Amino acid sequence: MGVDLLAITGSEQLIAQAYGICTGRDSISLDNIQKWIKRGHETPVEHCSATFRISDVSRSLLAQITRHRLASFSVQSTRYTDVCTNEKVYPEGYQNHHLFTNVYDVATLAYTKALTSGIAKEDARFLLPLALTTEFIMTANLREWRHIIKLRCDGVAQWEIRNLCTEILSILYEQYPHVFEDLYEEFIND
Amino acid sequence: MGVDLLAITGSEQLIAQAYGICTGRDSISLDNIQKWIKRGHETPVEHCSATFRISDVSRSLLAQITRHRLASFSVQSTRYTDVCTNEKVYPEGYQNHHLFTNVYDVATLAYTKALTSGIAKEDARFLLPLALTTEFIMTANLREWRHIIKLRCDGVAQWEIRNLCTEILSILYEQYPHVFEDLYEEFIND
Amino acid sequence: MGVDLLAITGSEQLIAQAYGICTGRDSISLDNIQKWIKRGHETPVEHCSATFRISDVSRSLLAQITRHRLASFSVQSTRYTDVCTNEKVYPEGYQNHHLFTNVYDVATLAYTKALTSGIAKEDARFLLPLALTTEFIMTANLREWRHIIKLRCDGVAQWEIRNLCTEILSILYEQYPHVFEDLYEEFIND
Amino acid sequence: MGVDLLAITGSEQLIAQAYGICTGRDSISLDNIQKWIKRGHETPVEHCSATFRISDVSRSLLAQITRHRLASFSVQSTRYTDVCTNEKVYPEGYQNHHLFTNVYDVATLAYTKALTSGIAKEDARFLLPLALTTEFIMTANLREWRHIIKLRCDGVAQWEIRNLCTEILSILYEQYPHVFEDLYEEFIND
Repeated sequence: MGVDLLAITGSEQLIAQAYGICTGRDSISLDNIQKWIKRGHETPVEHCSATFRISDVSRSLLAQITRHRLASFSVQSTRYTDVCTNEKVYPEGYQNHHLFTNVYDVATLAYTKALTSGIAKEDARFLLPLALTTEFIMTANLREWRHIIKLRCDGVAQWEIRNLCTEILSILYEQYPHVFEDLYEEFIND
Repeated sequence: MGVDLLAITGSEQLIAQAYGICTGRDSISLDNIQKWIKRGHETPVEHCSATFRISDVSRSLLAQITRHRLASFSVQSTRYTDVCTNEKVYPEGYQNHHLFTNVYDVATLAYTKALTSGIAKEDARFLLPLALTTEFIMTANLREWRHIIKLRCDGVAQWEIRNLCTEILSILYEQYPHVFEDLYEEFIND
Repeated sequence: MGVDLLAITGSEQLIAQAYGICTGRDSISLDNIQKWIKRGHETPVEHCSATFRISDVSRSLLAQITRHRLASFSVQSTRYTDVCTNEKVYPEGYQNHHLFTNVYDVATLAYTKALTSGIAKEDARFLLPLALTTEFIMTANLREWRHIIKLRCDGVAQWEIRNLCTEILSILYEQYPHVFEDLYEEFIND
Repeated sequence: MGVDLLAITGSEQLIAQAYGICTGRDSISLDNIQKWIKRGHETPVEHCSATFRISDVSRSLLAQITRHRLASFSVQSTRYTDVCTNEKVYPEGYQNHHLFTNVYDVATLAYTKALTSGIAKEDARFLLPLALTTEFIMTANLREWRHIIKLRCDGVAQWEIRNLCTEILSILYEQYPHVFEDLYEEFIND
């Protein structure tokens, strides 16, 4: 799993300024950001966003994370790119790495052969397994990242997306400690 | 592929009434809906929505259609349901049904065996191929359906999603002829 | 204040069916809808929506309610309609109806005279007070209505929008008792 | 009217990288961004966003611009702030500055007196005219800014919002010339 922070917008000062404008002040103290978030006044947090490049995650994870609709995604296309060299994600719970790899190899070999024989990528891909990795760039504002993290770092979330979102949380906490303090305490520094 | 219209909101009269309120009238004539849409004034069309149950489509299609973010989806979960009895979608362009089925069977048999041996569904699913069918309920308002149809009925769209959206268009045209007239002429009655 | 339900989509059966599809069943019992909502699994509730015609509310209310971004609005235009005959909303807390009306009349009379003298509606409107009424048609799905109601029926909300949303809640509770039961108990049947 | 760019995310390189990932390349040439936009492939442009502080604009403009739902707003509250010292916007088309100012002064003086006499801000504001200025912070991604600019720089748009969006376009064109080139040519460099 690769998680690289590509870009962030603005700083916590921008958020403090946005809280300020609502009530006729220049800004609020950074220490009060958590207080306002807890009161449910979260829109000022939307002015900052963070963009990640996420790689070596399964298509199963992709299916889950793209369901978050207040985010922007640019995903490696399986219609236009040859994904022969993509790696696989092995779920530890499978308990039989050898068997898993055998079946995985049958499927991906069939894919490669289909391409060689001239079948279109958009048809050859029908045999690709969910374990196949993909990569994408994802942007969301901090209010939405908070929402995603709450759902996906939770104990009931599926392990791969929980690992991803925990790593994202730890990066976002470094950049915006006053925004993510409560979630960091809940899910990482517990 | 199964496409069933489960519910629609309101009628074209509701849309005509919404156009009317903007300009201080009770309503506009149904015949003028297309004119307003063409001028780019599309928000009144959002007051109506349509809900479909879509079944026997591939996970490849699912990945594409869930990228439309102004819609609501309830999808069969592969974390919580056993998908052993789901069918497969065979892409005609593959040109070798026998080979395709063999590889598909290896993958889905491994899935079934994994479940039998006590592996969690969320891990067993990693070997499932994109050809496996799924089912879901999808709702969008008519403005968003128009947007989806324009992109997905186009000649450059992938065949499975084009077939789906063409069927949806034909159902929506029956229900809301004044809203979908232009798209029906472009993509079906051509 | 006028609040008329113009249209709803589907029934609670549709929501129960959407919950069912997620876990491989035909449907769930209506009695379990609240349980799923409380667990935070709210997307199936999005398949139903409700459309209201709201009239005789102030432009101050309009400014607040149009800030909800997951809804659709068709609003009487002040660029294209003459709003001379619109009524006003008098806030009880003003404590001086006579003074209020005097100032209000000065402003709206200036508006009427400006129109008579040939000034464009979009310029004449600059003197219109926030107390002037407007009307609009508004659609949102039930998940969003729940969100709006939670914020706007709360004791800290401004009185006019609280009155509006309480009336909306009482209408929605009649149509979808299993979806709005908790909010009805909290804000109306308290 | 005040328009200050407070923050931007990322650079055109980020957009080029996002276009690249879709088709399995590291990046595309900046010169090709316009080509992809014209083909309707606009999602990669969403990864960048821009935040402005906008001041000394009328509440009439506020009502229009907050209707764009894919943006984030933090607006000076009239429930919690005393707006006595806010300026006014005079529409040139009104053709009688003296009369306009007289009526405006009657209304705002009544507001100030109401506050002095202890009436709550949320009630006193009902007499405030649309000409009263406000200020807000607004963030949107570049795809949405393109959409807003197309609608609001158009000749049929209302003059105040057209002026605002033209100024925003000129700032965005400086920051992201390859993204806004076509709109700059259409609306500014014409």
